Amino acid sequence: MVNAVGRELPEKVGSYVVKPYTGIHKEAQTSAPVCSRRRPDPSPRRQSKRMPDLKAAILASGLKDGMTISFHHSFREGDKIVGQVLTAISELGIKGLCFAPSAVVNIKNPSIVDFVKDGTINRIQASGIRGELGDAVLQDLKLAEPVILRPHGARPHAIETGALSIDVAFIGASSADEMGNCTGQTGPNSCGALGYSFIDAVMAEKVVVITDNIVPYPCVPISIAQNYVDFVVQVDEIGDPDKIGAGAARLTKNPRDLLIAQRAADAIAASRLFKDDYSFQTGAGAISIACTNFLAQHTKEAGIQASFALGGMTANIVEMFDEGLVRTILCSQSFDAVAARAFSKSPQIIEIDNSMYSNMYNKSCVLDRLNFGVLGALEVDVDFNINILTGSNGEMMSGIGGGPDVADGADISIVTLPVIRGRTPSIVNRVFTCCTPGTSVAMVVTEAGIALNPAHKNYQMLKEDLSAAGLKLVTIEYLRDLAYSLTGIPKPIETTDEVVCIVEYRDGTVIDVIRRIKTDKIE
Amino acid sequence: MVNAVGRELPEKVGSYVVKPYTGIHKEAQTSAPVCSRRRPDPSPRRQSKRMPDLKAAILASGLKDGMTISFHHSFREGDKIVGQVLTAISELGIKGLCFAPSAVVNIKNPSIVDFVKDGTINRIQASGIRGELGDAVLQDLKLAEPVILRPHGARPHAIETGALSIDVAFIGASSADEMGNCTGQTGPNSCGALGYSFIDAVMAEKVVVITDNIVPYPCVPISIAQNYVDFVVQVDEIGDPDKIGAGAARLTKNPRDLLIAQRAADAIAASRLFKDDYSFQTGAGAISIACTNFLAQHTKEAGIQASFALGGMTANIVEMFDEGLVRTILCSQSFDAVAARAFSKSPQIIEIDNSMYSNMYNKSCVLDRLNFGVLGALEVDVDFNINILTGSNGEMMSGIGGGPDVADGADISIVTLPVIRGRTPSIVNRVFTCCTPGTSVAMVVTEAGIALNPAHKNYQMLKEDLSAAGLKLVTIEYLRDLAYSLTGIPKPIETTDEVVCIVEYRDGTVIDVIRRIKTDKIE
Repeated sequence: MVNAVGRELPEKVGSYVVKPYTGIHKEAQTSAPVCSRRRPDPSPRRQSKRMPDLKAAILASGLKDGMTISFHHSFREGDKIVGQVLTAISELGIKGLCFAPSAVVNIKNPSIVDFVKDGTINRIQASGIRGELGDAVLQDLKLAEPVILRPHGARPHAIETGALSIDVAFIGASSADEMGNCTGQTGPNSCGALGYSFIDAVMAEKVVVITDNIVPYPCVPISIAQNYVDFVVQVDEIGDPDKIGAGAARLTKNPRDLLIAQRAADAIAASRLFKDDYSFQTGAGAISIACTNFLAQHTKEAGIQASFALGGMTANIVEMFDEGLVRTILCSQSFDAVAARAFSKSPQIIEIDNSMYSNMYNKSCVLDRLNFGVLGALEVDVDFNINILTGSNGEMMSGIGGGPDVADGADISIVTLPVIRGRTPSIVNRVFTCCTPGTSVAMVVTEAGIALNPAHKNYQMLKEDLSAAGLKLVTIEYLRDLAYSLTGIPKPIETTDEVVCIVEYRDGTVIDVIRRIKTDKIE
Repeated sequence: MVNAVGRELPEKVGSYVVKPYTGIHKEAQTSAPVCSRRRPDPSPRRQSKRMPDLKAAILASGLKDGMTISFHHSFREGDKIVGQVLTAISELGIKGLCFAPSAVVNIKNPSIVDFVKDGTINRIQASGIRGELGDAVLQDLKLAEPVILRPHGARPHAIETGALSIDVAFIGASSADEMGNCTGQTGPNSCGALGYSFIDAVMAEKVVVITDNIVPYPCVPISIAQNYVDFVVQVDEIGDPDKIGAGAARLTKNPRDLLIAQRAADAIAASRLFKDDYSFQTGAGAISIACTNFLAQHTKEAGIQASFALGGMTANIVEMFDEGLVRTILCSQSFDAVAARAFSKSPQIIEIDNSMYSNMYNKSCVLDRLNFGVLGALEVDVDFNINILTGSNGEMMSGIGGGPDVADGADISIVTLPVIRGRTPSIVNRVFTCCTPGTSVAMVVTEAGIALNPAHKNYQMLKEDLSAAGLKLVTIEYLRDLAYSLTGIPKPIETTDEVVCIVEYRDGTVIDVIRRIKTDKIE
């Protein structure tokens, strides 16, 4: 079958029944009430929940072969939780687990691939599997089921419907007390918001909090409360503070990227929606961070204040707050140390649950109220479909993140990317992997001009506003032609028929699949 | 059958199957996972959730005959939500509802009794039904089922197991935005913590937020988040600020009560558990508030700091915080205007969910960590059983509140009461209504001395500590004899066989029932 973004899909992949993407908000499933795996615990727990070590906690949690475990990715490249837990599980001889973090962080010695090879893990569900794991999955790594990749907004829904049913959630926290109250906002290895863990804490059957900083009871602030926590384990180190922010890029000096960032900010400022109480999410890519700075300048010049900044936070959004350019920060994750520690500045800087942030199946989520969302992409095609997962050779380059959610939720979603990267065109006829449907993308901003999407709901408004501001508007085909003129038309990536990754959209339907790359084609 | 506190119980009352209380923590039911009534909503909600008026919201909620509705009691005697909502429902002709607030607040013109009489309500579940409603229930008011009274800690469990299944929760908030983010901490009719509403918001099928203060999006702080809210209604007035704190008594000048309060504080200070990082809950009764002041003095003299104060907050606990005598305030409800507005002072003053506070079926609740709990009572008997519900003529005097939870959870639970009130003895052979089993009560403090409970787990420790401090220890029988010598032995209250109220214990078992009073016996 073929879905609404023209992707050929099998009807079933392993045990996964494919529900094809049928268009924005066309999905209208009958929904059962939200049920957790958490059981009322009939005996009061007055004593400490501390366990002597990870193995003791894992055994006490009842983890068995074939179960599902989860983690958050808030320690990013500095994470030392996942490796320690998987090592302990592996040493206990527990096999065949489904590994379901909010996103896979790259760990080394051993790596996730090693835990697949030794049989500890045989299934993976995450928002991304970039790096060694992704490459291995696309090449020759054997898993029992295809990897399921979901945007941030789809994960809470998958958990709430039981599509992803977590037996044991392992939650790293930079401070915790012995009863399990915990936070990422304090402690030597502070990672900031734990927004991706809230749903795991509430919905999983068992919850293990792992910290290197036990504090006197009660741990304050309380990001995750003791009533959701079964066990607490103290380890030597949960993360490397120097690397906790390292997954996110820092301010670029690349003139091309700065130009793109400036253009994106100019496009925002040109919109009639750029007025007092506007809202935005810019993200943590190099261009995004630069864009935030230009947006701050525009906001100051216009003498206005944003009502809220949303999602992943960076130091320069906190600066905007300090300067009175943003009234509220609703933060689901912290991309750097400044953002991680900003919560104590003001009650207007709030840690929010990822489900509140991005789950479209809630009674409402915050990103559906966004005015402006700035997104990165690896490729965009002439239908404005976005690929944020796979690179020029089909290799796994990134995670889906919240991009598909933000693109759809924001009034104006702005994809920022250069026309070419190295010898690779970014604007193409057809993206290799479709993560975000083009109809949800308002514009593509490049160093060679801005392409508005005629199929976007706000096209007319944007055309008027951006034209009036004298911004350089081009067609998406012009950008593609420019890219191809510089790089030539790339040869198609050759794949086998075997589906190794399923790519879900924010509504839980399948927007694309990723097939195994013919091995000799990987460079 | 007879339960573990010697109460004769029927096996069934209406459709309610009686599970008798069998002793502290003897209940070990097999528990199903926690399931809510909330359904994943398949369509993103970008637009305002505001409805023009209460009737429109009630109709949109799908409320129908026979369903269950809930409210919180945080506006206490100043509440103007319950009356407006019930009036609108009544005018819409919806009948036979189960009225299930966290506690019944007294409203007038019309009263709850009027809504029972007109058929709008035919069942009631709450922590208390004091006043006109309680009197009517005990006398001649006809309900379809007996009233179920539960302590605060049992309500979340009843909701999580489906024993109390809420169709529509009406949540009053002193500030809200148009998407449903709301709080009781700000606005002209601030009531403080909304701790009793969190479970309703998360578990009910539909949630209606009612406010008189719509604020720009996003409402901050966010006590209840938009992802749980279906509709927002603005009304002229949600409460009377002068009366919001009026349900709680103020500092007493009664020398007898001051003496009891001083004794209770002295008993705490004499305990070996009174040391740095101790914890306490004192409550809002007249004696309790005075006790807090004496406790503050002891804490200052000892040069120590409490780790946390818990539960319902009063101005003088906030004063203790300001003086550095308490490190953290974990507040589930605010008893006065000072406490209601204290959250903005410091991140160490936290609004907490009632389930986190008191539900023993959680993975742990905070009150099971308490060192000292000070409780009020109407009657205590020689087995230390507590009656906090019914007065000398069997009339409904108060609600159960969190007393049974605190008595069991605290290391040392202290009941404060005078030996007699008017012509009524407070220390008796057998309480008319048993709300809290005596085995969970450590001591009774009166103006005539302190009676330690030999059956309490910490009896030996307390006996040593209080003796060493030279406090006046007496037996509970001595106090009873003293009371009876002053009042005579009261005649038993005569009842019919008809059970009109079921009194649940914190574990969900039935600790007592209240039978209909023979009408000619009510004064």
